[in-house]
Amino acid sequence: MKEAIVLVSGGLDSATCLAIAADKGYSSYALSFDYGQRSVSELDAARRVVSANLVMGRKVMEHKVIELRMGEFGGSALTDANIDVPEIESEGIPVTYVPARNTIFLSYALAWAEVVDADAIFIGVNALDYSGYPDCRPEYIEAFQKLINLATKVGVEGRQISLETPLINLSKAEIIKAGEQLKVDYALTVSCYQADELGQACGVCDSCRLRKKGFADADTVDPTRYQ
Amino acid sequence: MKEAIVLVSGGLDSATCLAIAADKGYSSYALSFDYGQRSVSELDAARRVVSANLVMGRKVMEHKVIELRMGEFGGSALTDANIDVPEIESEGIPVTYVPARNTIFLSYALAWAEVVDADAIFIGVNALDYSGYPDCRPEYIEAFQKLINLATKVGVEGRQISLETPLINLSKAEIIKAGEQLKVDYALTVSCYQADELGQACGVCDSCRLRKKGFADADTVDPTRYQ
Repeated sequence: MKEAIVLVSGGLDSATCLAIAADKGYSSYALSFDYGQRSVSELDAARRVVSANLVMGRKVMEHKVIELRMGEFGGSALTDANIDVPEIESEGIPVTYVPARNTIFLSYALAWAEVVDADAIFIGVNALDYSGYPDCRPEYIEAFQKLINLATKVGVEGRQISLETPLINLSKAEIIKAGEQLKVDYALTVSCYQADELGQACGVCDSCRLRKKGFADADTVDPTRYQ
Repeated sequence: MKEAIVLVSGGLDSATCLAIAADKGYSSYALSFDYGQRSVSELDAARRVVSANLVMGRKVMEHKVIELRMGEFGGSALTDANIDVPEIESEGIPVTYVPARNTIFLSYALAWAEVVDADAIFIGVNALDYSGYPDCRPEYIEAFQKLINLATKVGVEGRQISLETPLINLSKAEIIKAGEQLKVDYALTVSCYQADELGQACGVCDSCRLRKKGFADADTVDPTRYQ
């Protein structure tokens, strides 16, 4: 059986990504990060999403939650309590951008992939209905794939750990439709940048706006619990 | 004044690298990692090296030691107590290789570089007298530079955070000679994979062998304290 490291944040995209990996025949190593993000209920959601997959009989070998000290660097509204999460759309790269976040996440995924000898890494980045972060773009993903090939023991031996981004060119509505076909329960997920302890969403941050519009465009019921 | 993140492990190479960065006119942000490495005295050495630079009047803005949970993945003699550090030279990539280590280190350096708006990242990798790790090779460094350009806010804006590897093509003897010209005190540094608590070296691991040979080839006194 093929094996993959799957990054699971607890949000809508990564929950879909985990279901897609299972559907493609991978058994998964789910990887989440406690990186000082504003919304700790995201991690509760990640655990719920993994559990739901196990209940459905999907193979999740292990779920690791790695504690990172990214907040020590500051510089983002998601990890720095002194920077407010904006409630209106912003120009350019927003203040919710966490410096090098995906690079750090993927580096850890790569380390785990090397240790368990996984065939792939799945990450639910999306370059269409997204917040404009540079490390969600296809050219970034291509550059990381090249890095993987050069960075690793297996790469030197001529085998590839494949970086899979099944959502990268989908709209939020298309992601939701794909997930519904795979029986993803979006009520379990939390996308909000500032969800409360119960996982209830603010409804006004960038991430909430994209999610809300996704359910509307997909013409399906939005199961999000709002504050 | 130009600013750089400098990775400081406490070893000979990174101590030289920090001196070179200062010599090139950079003020430094020194970055070390507590990643469950066998030799904790490496981190003491990193602190001594940074202090020595401050005493010499070199600008080190800050020294951060970031705790990483790389040991959780296992898979390396340097982070896994169940794998012995070999005392003879091995074929291919040795068991002291830590999966994705430099990728994780550089990712953190990149995050800090973005937050403090640094111009460069210095890493003392060396592809000549080295242990054969894939993530020390020039092609790996080139791939990471491309990733930096695509991953970052400044990259999107057309400015580059430059990944500097001043030691990459030097022999260990040449590194030592360069460092001596810049008054690096190698007695402060620890290279050994399994140094004791006092920072005394085993003299037989791969890293010790390379270091010993370096001092001999440079025709200079080896200040290393052996067990």
